[in-house]
Amino acid sequence: MSTNIRVGIIGGGRIGKLHATNMTTRVSGVDVVAIADPFANSALENWAVGWGIPKVLKEYKAILTDPDVDAVLICSPSDTHAAISQEAALAKKHVFCEKPLDQNPEVVRETLEVINKAKVVFQIGFNRRFDHNFRALRTAIADGSIGDIHLLCITSRDPEPPPLEYIRGSGGLFMDMAIHDFDMARFLTGSEVVKVHAAGAVLVNPEIGQEGDIDTAITTLWFENGALGVIDNSRRATYGYDQRAEVFGSKGCVSSLNDTPSTVRVSDAECVRSDKPLFFFLERYAESFAEEIRDFVNAVNKNAEVPGAKDALNSVLIAHAAQKSLETGGPVDVKRG
Amino acid sequence: MSTNIRVGIIGGGRIGKLHATNMTTRVSGVDVVAIADPFANSALENWAVGWGIPKVLKEYKAILTDPDVDAVLICSPSDTHAAISQEAALAKKHVFCEKPLDQNPEVVRETLEVINKAKVVFQIGFNRRFDHNFRALRTAIADGSIGDIHLLCITSRDPEPPPLEYIRGSGGLFMDMAIHDFDMARFLTGSEVVKVHAAGAVLVNPEIGQEGDIDTAITTLWFENGALGVIDNSRRATYGYDQRAEVFGSKGCVSSLNDTPSTVRVSDAECVRSDKPLFFFLERYAESFAEEIRDFVNAVNKNAEVPGAKDALNSVLIAHAAQKSLETGGPVDVKRG
Amino acid sequence: MSTNIRVGIIGGGRIGKLHATNMTTRVSGVDVVAIADPFANSALENWAVGWGIPKVLKEYKAILTDPDVDAVLICSPSDTHAAISQEAALAKKHVFCEKPLDQNPEVVRETLEVINKAKVVFQIGFNRRFDHNFRALRTAIADGSIGDIHLLCITSRDPEPPPLEYIRGSGGLFMDMAIHDFDMARFLTGSEVVKVHAAGAVLVNPEIGQEGDIDTAITTLWFENGALGVIDNSRRATYGYDQRAEVFGSKGCVSSLNDTPSTVRVSDAECVRSDKPLFFFLERYAESFAEEIRDFVNAVNKNAEVPGAKDALNSVLIAHAAQKSLETGGPVDVKRG
Amino acid sequence: MSTNIRVGIIGGGRIGKLHATNMTTRVSGVDVVAIADPFANSALENWAVGWGIPKVLKEYKAILTDPDVDAVLICSPSDTHAAISQEAALAKKHVFCEKPLDQNPEVVRETLEVINKAKVVFQIGFNRRFDHNFRALRTAIADGSIGDIHLLCITSRDPEPPPLEYIRGSGGLFMDMAIHDFDMARFLTGSEVVKVHAAGAVLVNPEIGQEGDIDTAITTLWFENGALGVIDNSRRATYGYDQRAEVFGSKGCVSSLNDTPSTVRVSDAECVRSDKPLFFFLERYAESFAEEIRDFVNAVNKNAEVPGAKDALNSVLIAHAAQKSLETGGPVDVKRG
Repeated sequence: MSTNIRVGIIGGGRIGKLHATNMTTRVSGVDVVAIADPFANSALENWAVGWGIPKVLKEYKAILTDPDVDAVLICSPSDTHAAISQEAALAKKHVFCEKPLDQNPEVVRETLEVINKAKVVFQIGFNRRFDHNFRALRTAIADGSIGDIHLLCITSRDPEPPPLEYIRGSGGLFMDMAIHDFDMARFLTGSEVVKVHAAGAVLVNPEIGQEGDIDTAITTLWFENGALGVIDNSRRATYGYDQRAEVFGSKGCVSSLNDTPSTVRVSDAECVRSDKPLFFFLERYAESFAEEIRDFVNAVNKNAEVPGAKDALNSVLIAHAAQKSLETGGPVDVKRG
Repeated sequence: MSTNIRVGIIGGGRIGKLHATNMTTRVSGVDVVAIADPFANSALENWAVGWGIPKVLKEYKAILTDPDVDAVLICSPSDTHAAISQEAALAKKHVFCEKPLDQNPEVVRETLEVINKAKVVFQIGFNRRFDHNFRALRTAIADGSIGDIHLLCITSRDPEPPPLEYIRGSGGLFMDMAIHDFDMARFLTGSEVVKVHAAGAVLVNPEIGQEGDIDTAITTLWFENGALGVIDNSRRATYGYDQRAEVFGSKGCVSSLNDTPSTVRVSDAECVRSDKPLFFFLERYAESFAEEIRDFVNAVNKNAEVPGAKDALNSVLIAHAAQKSLETGGPVDVKRG
Repeated sequence: MSTNIRVGIIGGGRIGKLHATNMTTRVSGVDVVAIADPFANSALENWAVGWGIPKVLKEYKAILTDPDVDAVLICSPSDTHAAISQEAALAKKHVFCEKPLDQNPEVVRETLEVINKAKVVFQIGFNRRFDHNFRALRTAIADGSIGDIHLLCITSRDPEPPPLEYIRGSGGLFMDMAIHDFDMARFLTGSEVVKVHAAGAVLVNPEIGQEGDIDTAITTLWFENGALGVIDNSRRATYGYDQRAEVFGSKGCVSSLNDTPSTVRVSDAECVRSDKPLFFFLERYAESFAEEIRDFVNAVNKNAEVPGAKDALNSVLIAHAAQKSLETGGPVDVKRG
Repeated sequence: MSTNIRVGIIGGGRIGKLHATNMTTRVSGVDVVAIADPFANSALENWAVGWGIPKVLKEYKAILTDPDVDAVLICSPSDTHAAISQEAALAKKHVFCEKPLDQNPEVVRETLEVINKAKVVFQIGFNRRFDHNFRALRTAIADGSIGDIHLLCITSRDPEPPPLEYIRGSGGLFMDMAIHDFDMARFLTGSEVVKVHAAGAVLVNPEIGQEGDIDTAITTLWFENGALGVIDNSRRATYGYDQRAEVFGSKGCVSSLNDTPSTVRVSDAECVRSDKPLFFFLERYAESFAEEIRDFVNAVNKNAEVPGAKDALNSVLIAHAAQKSLETGGPVDVKRG
C-alpha cells in the first residue's frame, strides 16, 4: 500500500469529485489524501469522509506544501490552471491538469517551460483519447488497417449549450468545445495540423451570438502528412451527445459510432426504434475518466505516455487559428508548439 | 455510515471476490465486514487488507454467529448453498445466494420454508435480470410496447465449455447453464413455464457426452399465458459470449443484441469488420453483478423486489423437466413452486 | 431469338402474372407465348397485349398440346399442381411448379415418377433459395466459414394471416407456410431432417383455431448430420415480413437480417427510428422470383441445378411429421423421399 | 399503347443503353423508337433488335426531325450536351440530358433560354435524387422530422478514379464528381448554396495531380437559409462506392447509409464480418436510373417536377466557385442562376 501515489485534488467541483471517486474505487495504485476548494464546507467534508479522503482544505497551497502529496489534479476554474500548474511544478508535484492549460499560447508555453525544468510528469485532461471507441480507432489506424490517411471526419455535438455566463468566459466554441476535437484530430492521425479554415453560424441560440460566439461550425484541417480533415460542431443535439469519428485512407476506412444505454430495439407497426446515444459526457466518457487517471498513475511510475505539454499547446494554437479564420474568412496557418 | 448494511461473504473464490470488490467500490450503503473460506491463506488475507475487509475466516459459521453481520452472500460451492442458506436464515441473517440453491427441488422447497419462517430477505443470484439490455427488454415488454406475448426466443451460448470435472458435478447443461435462461424466460414474459420439450446433442466435445451430458440444446417452452418460447444453448461460441433475446407479441417485437468492446468498424477491400461480443460473463455482466447487490441492499431496506424463493425453485423445476424431456423424448409438464 | 425457351403460363393470378412480367422484362432467354386461365377475360387479354403475350386461353390443355411451347409454369390452385404437372410431363413440357406439388406425399411421389420417366426438367417454386440474403448465407456455410453446423434458427413470420377460406384449404400452417422454412432448413444446412417436434398455439386469431389450424408455432428439427434446428412461425408480425436465419457452427455463426425500404435513420429527442422490414413477400422476394426463373431457364439449358423433385417431396414429408407431432405432442420421425 | 411517349436516344454508350433497357423493361408509358450513335455498328443493331428498338441511326439529327419522336435522351459526350439540347428544343422535343449540361455557366444559361422559349420539358440527369435512400432522407427533412437545418454532411467517394484521359476533359473533381453532391446538397436542404470553400489534395494518384486536378477534397458550403454544409470527396474508396448523407437540425438528425449486397454477417473467432457497400454506381443507383425516367415520363405528362434548368445551372455555378476557392484558398461567393 505504501507505494501508492498520493494525490491532492485542487477543486471540489463536479470534475474534481469525479476524479476522486474514480481514484478511490476504480483506479489502483493511488490514494487521495487531500482535496482543496475555496468553497469547502461541511457538505464537502461529509462527502470526503464518505470516500475516505482525510483532508479537506480551503487553500490549495496547503496541498502544494504537503510533503505527503506526490501529485496534484488541477480541477479548479480554467483561468487558474496555468498559475497553479506552475506552482505545483515548482513544488515538485506531478501535475494532471484539466484542459485547457490556458487560452493564451504564450502562457501555455511559459507554463510548460516551468514544468519541463521541474522534471515532473505533466498530463493534460484530454480524456477522449482514453475512450474505448476512440482508442480502438487509433489502434486500427496505427496497425495500418487503412493505410495512409487521406481524410478525417469528426462529428462532435453537445447535447445542450452551457449557460450563457459560462460561454462568456469560455474563449468561444473553438477554445472551449472544439479543442477536444483538435486534440482528437492530432491523436487519430498521428500528425500535426498545419492550417485550418473555419465556418461558423449562430443557429441554436441567438443569445450565444450576442456574446460574440457561434454555436455551429465546420472546420477544415490540413495535416502535415498531407491529409485533409473536417470537424462539425454543434452546441445542441436533441438526441444526446454525438461523438463519432471516421478516418479514411488508402486501404480503407475506420469509423466509430456512439454508445447507447442498451442494444434493445422495438419493431412495431410504425417503425423500428432504438436507443439514443448516451446523453452527456459524464455517461459517455465515464470510463475514459478512470482510464486517464490510470495512465497518469502509470506515467508517474514511468510506464505510460500521456497527452502532455505538446498536446496542451498545439490544441490551443489550432483553436486560435480557427477563431482567426472565422474572423477573416480565409484559411490560417497554425503555429507550432 | 452506521446505517450501512454489514455483509459477510461465504466463499472466497472468483465470484465471492467479485461481489466484495463491487460492494467496496461500486455499491453504496453496504460494508463488507468479513469473508470466510476454508482455504483462506495469506494471499486472501492480503487481498482482504487491500480492499479494507477486516476479518478473514476459515469457518463460515463464525460469520453466522457474528452479531455485527446483517446479511451474508453465499458464494461457496453449489452443493453447500441450501444448507448454509438454512443456517444463515436461522441465524437471522439476510441471504443472497448464488444460483442454484440446490439441484433437488425438495431441498429447495425445504430451504425456502426455513427462510420464510425466519422472515429474512432472500435473493437468488440471477444476475442477468440486472443486465442493462435484459432490463430494457423487460421494461419495453411491461410497458405494453409489444402487446400480448406470443413468442420468446433466447440465444444463450457460452464462449467455452467448463472443465470436464466441473461438468461432472454441474447437474448437466439444463441445471447449470440453461437455468439462467429459464429464469430469464420467466422474467421477460412475466409468466410461468407450464411445459417443456428439450432436444440435445453432443457436438462441441464428445467427452462431455461421455459424462452423460450434452453441449447443445433446443428447448421449447409453453407459458401459462399461452405464449410459446424457445431457448438455444451451446457450450462453445468461438466469437464469445452470445446472450440475446427476442420477444414477439401482438403489437410488435423487441430484441436485444450483444455488447461489444467498441463500436468501431473497419471497411476495406475485403469486407466490413466489427467487434465480436464481449468474450466472457465477467465482462458482459460486470455491471449486472453490481446492480444485483445494489438491489439486495435495497431489498434489505425494503425498497426493492428481487429474484427470490419462487424464482430459485421454479427455475430448478424447469431444469428438471427439461432433463426429463431430453431423456424421454416427449414434452414434460413443469411442476410449480 | 429463336433459341429462347418458349413458356406457357397456367394460371393468370397474381403469381402467374408476376412470373410473366419477370420473364418479359427481367429474364433473358425466355419468351412467354401463352397464358391460360379458366377465368380469362378481356382484362387479362389487355394485360397480355400490354406485355406482348400473344395467346390468352381459357383451357390449359391447349398449352400442353401446343408444339410451340417448351415449358410450362404451373401457377394454378395448389390442388391442381400434381395433376397438371403429370399431364405437362407426359406432354414433354419442362415443368416449373409453384409449391406445394401436393399435400399428400403419395401423390407427390407418383407425380415425381411420372416426371422422371418423362425426362423433363422439374423445378419446385421454393423462391427463397434465390433470395440474395439466404443465398449469401448458404454460400458462407458452404465455404466452411462456420465449420460444422450445430444449430439452425429460422425466424419466419408473415405480416398478416391469409383469409380464413384460404386457411381452410391450405393444409395448415406447416403445409402452407412453414413448408418454405423446412425447405430453407434443408437448403442452408445441406442436410436432411430426420425428426421433428412441433408446438403450436392460436394467439393471432381465434377463428384460425376454429378452422382446426394454429397461427403460432415452434418447431424443433433434428438433422441427419447431427445438428439441431428451430423454426418459429407467426401468421402476423405487425412490423412486416420477418424472414431471418442464423446458422451456428464449430467455427462461428452466420446470420441474415431483413431488408428495409431505405437505410435512413432519424434521431430525435425521443429515440432513433429506422425502417421496418419490407412488408410483404412480393417486395422482399421480388428479385428472388426473377432469379428462380433465370435458373429454370438455365436448368432447361442444362446449366443449373434447381430445387427439384426431392425438395418438393421432402418438405411435404417434414410438414406432415410436424403436423403429426403437433397432434401427438411427441417428436415424430420424418420419412425420406 | 398509342399514348406512350416515344423516345429517341442520342448516344449508344453505357448510359444510353442502360436507359434504353430500363425504358423497355421497367418503365411504363414509354417506347424507345430510335437510337443514334456515330459509331453505330452491327453490334448495336443486334442489341437494338433484341430490345425491340426499331431504328438504329448514325446521325442524331435524324431523331430530331422524326415526327414520331416526342422526346430525346441526350447520352452523348458531355461537350455536346448543350448544343444538342438546344437543337432538340428547337425541334420541339422534350429533353432529358445527362449531366452536366455544360461546364460553362454562360453556355448553360443560353441553352436554358432556348429550352424555355421552346416550352419543352427539360430534365437534367441528377439520378441520385431518385435513389431510395436519398429520397427517404429528403422526405424526412421535408416532413419536419429534424426541424430547421443546421448542418449537412455528405460523404461521396468513388470506388476507383476514372482513366487519366477522362480526367483530362472532365473539368476537374468539382465539375465532374462533386457536382452530384452539390445538387444533392441543394436537394436535401431545399436551399441554395451562397458561398463555398474548398480544400483539395492529391493523395490517390500523383498523375491526377499532373493533370492539374485533385483526387481528395473537403468543401464547406454556406446555405441561403443559414445552414452550413460539408462534402468530403475521394476518387478511390477501396471498399466500394461510399455515398452517405447526414442532415442535422434543431429537432434531430437524419442520416442514410450505403446499400450492401446482403444483410449477412459472419461472426467467428476473429471478428464480425459483413458486406462492403455495393461497388459501383450502376449497382448502387440501378433503381434510381429507372426512377428518374419514370419521372421524366410523368413530367412530360405534366404530373411531376423534375430536376430542371435551375438545377443544371446552379450545380455548375457551385462547381466553378469551388474550383476558384481551391485556387485562391479563400471562400468564394456562388453566383445564382
